[in-house]
Amino acid sequence: MDNYFMKEAICEALKAYELKEIPIGAVIVKNEEIVGRGYNLKETLKDATLHAEILAIKDACKNLGGWRLPGCTMYVTLEPCAMCAGALVNARVERLVIGTRDHKTGACGSILNIVQMQNLNHQITVEFGILGDECSNMLKRFFSELRKNKNIKYR
Amino acid sequence: MDNYFMKEAICEALKAYELKEIPIGAVIVKNEEIVGRGYNLKETLKDATLHAEILAIKDACKNLGGWRLPGCTMYVTLEPCAMCAGALVNARVERLVIGTRDHKTGACGSILNIVQMQNLNHQITVEFGILGDECSNMLKRFFSELRKNKNIKYR
Repeated sequence: MDNYFMKEAICEALKAYELKEIPIGAVIVKNEEIVGRGYNLKETLKDATLHAEILAIKDACKNLGGWRLPGCTMYVTLEPCAMCAGALVNARVERLVIGTRDHKTGACGSILNIVQMQNLNHQITVEFGILGDECSNMLKRFFSELRKNKNIKYR
Repeated sequence: MDNYFMKEAICEALKAYELKEIPIGAVIVKNEEIVGRGYNLKETLKDATLHAEILAIKDACKNLGGWRLPGCTMYVTLEPCAMCAGALVNARVERLVIGTRDHKTGACGSILNIVQMQNLNHQITVEFGILGDECSNMLKRFFSELRKNKNIKYR
């Protein structure tokens, strides 16, 4: 089932791609059902907090009727940053399945590991590399196209 | 001016207090003008992401018309958690003024320091203790009242 739900996260990422946003997507799953979805909308809505993961968490909180998301797994195409990793801990997400690593800002094992800090009150099981090549190639293609069109600047 | 703007953050926190939310408030200031406000609404709106700082960042992004908040200072009554510290870095906030420390989840120097990590692409100047007693006493009073009314559970 992990591949199936990562495919759904990739579908979310492609919605960002179409808007010329960095293509990152996430879904949240409980009892084999998608309860939250999100894709990067930071540039479109001009809001630093609108990463795919935050939007998926907000969507899941709304659908499940509470701020705690126990028994939930997040599938996300790129390793979450510190903000999103902190949000996953705050929401008590149980498991995190990541497509590809973010060596610059990844906060789930790459530059730091917020989701498994023993001195926080919640730790998350993490798995890397589910459809990793697909997630990574989507990002590479996006940045390669971006370089061809140099009047758009990201990061 | 720091005391003046921290008072404004305390006013935001008191709005949370009235809703029986943990009383935390934040304002964002640019050129001595408040451009964003927020208070904790996590329980009321049943959304794990709705900390005071996230709401203040969203408000400032909306008011300033972009996801970057250069030249901005956040005043916040309690030390931000990992999610909020990460959001401050993502939004490129310049300076962070904190009322009181959070020894359990504070991610701006207490249990970790996300806002001054050298391997992230932005670092924030941090100052602790502005109206610290006032911020700390407000939280103590809230939790003391909560213990008297034990049918409400937090954290």
